[in-house]
This record gives sequence, structure tokens and C-alpha cells, in this order.
Amino acid sequence: MKIALLGGTGDIAEGLVLRWSKAGHEIFIGSRSEEKAQTITDEYKEKLASLGIEGQISGMANADAAKAAEVVIISIPPEYAAATISQIKDSFTDQIVVTPVVSMERHEDKSFVYNPPPQGSSALEIKEALPETVRLVSAYHNLPAKELSKVEEDLDYDVVICGDDEEAKAVVTKLTEDMPNMRVLDAGPLKLSAMIEAITPLIVNLNIKHKRHFSVKFV
Amino acid sequence: MKIALLGGTGDIAEGLVLRWSKAGHEIFIGSRSEEKAQTITDEYKEKLASLGIEGQISGMANADAAKAAEVVIISIPPEYAAATISQIKDSFTDQIVVTPVVSMERHEDKSFVYNPPPQGSSALEIKEALPETVRLVSAYHNLPAKELSKVEEDLDYDVVICGDDEEAKAVVTKLTEDMPNMRVLDAGPLKLSAMIEAITPLIVNLNIKHKRHFSVKFV
Repeated sequence: MKIALLGGTGDIAEGLVLRWSKAGHEIFIGSRSEEKAQTITDEYKEKLASLGIEGQISGMANADAAKAAEVVIISIPPEYAAATISQIKDSFTDQIVVTPVVSMERHEDKSFVYNPPPQGSSALEIKEALPETVRLVSAYHNLPAKELSKVEEDLDYDVVICGDDEEAKAVVTKLTEDMPNMRVLDAGPLKLSAMIEAITPLIVNLNIKHKRHFSVKFV
Repeated sequence: MKIALLGGTGDIAEGLVLRWSKAGHEIFIGSRSEEKAQTITDEYKEKLASLGIEGQISGMANADAAKAAEVVIISIPPEYAAATISQIKDSFTDQIVVTPVVSMERHEDKSFVYNPPPQGSSALEIKEALPETVRLVSAYHNLPAKELSKVEEDLDYDVVICGDDEEAKAVVTKLTEDMPNMRVLDAGPLKLSAMIEAITPLIVNLNIKHKRHFSVKFV
């Protein structure tokens, strides 16, 4: 499929690019400027080459990446995600958009807490910024970036998703299963996203305390 | 140890009673009336006998059970938990109190959502109802009752806990490890409880959708 990663640098973007390239998907890296997107894309191309993966990957401005793709991953820090999407709203028609965005804050004692926007969750905030024709799926909140980027390792994680469009959730499920051995668990409608998002700061706290890169599994 | 289960009927109480009896702990079943506590206790005694487990278990009013115990588990439905604790506040001195309480509500579409009290979490609401001398630990929110009651089966679950007293968390960790093969993950201070509690309605939704009795594991 044609997959765009908006703000496609850092965090989970690298692992997704590597794994989906390996699975044969075409990747569009979006950034605020086309130039920055090109720089990032060249870095990914080098990594893909060093891993012997033949990737189809190109860099462009966020708006163009969104237009070119069937599935758009919002890989933008929470404080900028909704505003960035609003700015390029016209680039969206009927794409499937995936939000792994989680708004959290850090307390003085260095513990992280879930800090949802007034809409109730980051997913609902982003839904407001998108045209209604877009099918939004909330997913990939709890993938540890470091493990995800080790493309030779299969990852025995559960990816909990939610959304209001069954077909869109089926597409995201398929894309997730293209990254062995991840399992998708559908939690239900988009309005449940807060409960999935809240696991992320909990995992961040556990990671700090236990010096790990945890993901989650339902057993 | 001497462990009280207040409102010790239903949900996870049965599994805890059976597993801790097997591990040699002394159990006090509390209920609103001594008579009801006796009835429940007799049922547990029968179950323990049928499983060949020699248990030390007695029934009494909630206030007496709390007084008799070193560790008190609040096994009371969320809508009554804080009020019940307030009513017997004088029974608490320096016990370790464990809250698995999670306040949730059911939407019209039958999905469950986390619905914390004004204090921010059920744990913080219960903390307010208790004397300050009590050491409160938030734990056992995500144990599936049905699996827990199958005392012959080891459970490969993670129990995420939080609390402000390290010694109390160490005691709860030990008690949890008395139920093989559970692992405790300490998430940090009590104020983080909301993120642990929010996993429960998420799991309830997953259970309904996928016809399972999920617990959680961090991998």
C-alpha cells in the first residue's frame, strides 16, 4: 500500500518505515519542508540499503505525502499534531488516518501522567482537525521505538486499536500483521481511545523504573 | 499474614481467598453484617475443603475484619467502596490497605469507559476516606475473576501496583508472588493509579468483543 508518515522522523517512524519497506509497501515521508523530508528519506534509504532491504521511499512536504497515500500515519509530537493536521486539512479526502498520538505531561517528581486534551483523547482532538470523510483509526501508541527499529527481530506485541470504520480497522490490522508477530486487538469505537492512550505514560514510568522498553500483551 | 477481604464476596475475592489460603495465610471475610460474612465464609470453607486446602478463614463485620488484619483488601463495588470505608474509618490504624477499585460507566452502545471520581482516581478517592496512618497500595485491578478462582492453574500475569509507601508495596509484592506465577511491576506513586485503573474497562471491552478473560502482561 501507499503509506505516508507525516513528521516522519524519530520515535516509532523509523521502525515502521523499515518494517513496512521490508513488507513491500511504498512509503512517503512527510515533513514541514520538502528539504527536511528529503534529508530524512536519504537517511532511511541508507539504513534500508545497509539491511539489504529494497525500499520504495520518497520525501515530500506533509501535504503532498498525505495526498499521495492511502494510509497516513500521524508521527508528529502531541503538542503539534492537531495543529499540523489542521494546516493541511485540504490534503485529506478519504484516506485512512492512523493516530498513535498521546498527550502526556511530566510531574516534578519525573513521573509521567496522561493528560488528554479537552476533547477527551488525542484521537478525538485529531478527529476534530480532519475532514469527516477521513476514516480515523487510533493505533500504535505502545510500540517501543528502539525494539521496533530492530527489523530482524519479530515482536510478540499486542496492538490495541479503536475506530468507527470497520474497513479502516481491517486495513490497519493487515498492515500491523505485516510486521511479525504483532497481533491486533480491536477495542471498539474511537471514543474509547483515551483508555488505550493512557497506557503509554504508564509504560514510560515502568520503563524508567525498571530500565526496560516495555510493550503490552493481553493474556 | 492476616488478610481481610472487605465485602469479601464475588469478583476477585474468591480467587484471592483460595490462593492465599493455599499459601497459608489467615483470612478474615468482612461484610456489612456478621451473618452475611458467616454465610460467605461457610461457602469458601466448603470450596477449600473440596480442593483439599486447609484454610484458616473466619467471617465477621467489615469493621472487625479490618481491625483483625495486617493487610486489608477492599473488595467492594466502586459505587460503595469509599462510603463503606468512611463508615468504618475508626477500624483503621496502620494496616496496609489494597484498593483494586475501578470506577467505570457503561455507554448506551454497551462499551465501558473509565469514569474516575473527582479526586482523579478510585485510589485517591479511597485515600481520602482512610486515616493518614494507613498505607494504601493500588493493585489487583486487572485480575480476571474466573481465571483467578481456578486455583490449580498458575497465572502468568503482571500485576501493576502503585503507592507512596515502599514497605507496603514490598508486602503486596510478596503476597502477589504467593500466587504463582504472577509478577509485580511497581509503577510509582499512588497518584499514578488512574492509568492502571483505566486498563480495566479497556480489558472489559476486549473481553466482550473477543470472548476472553484477558489480563495484562508487559513484554
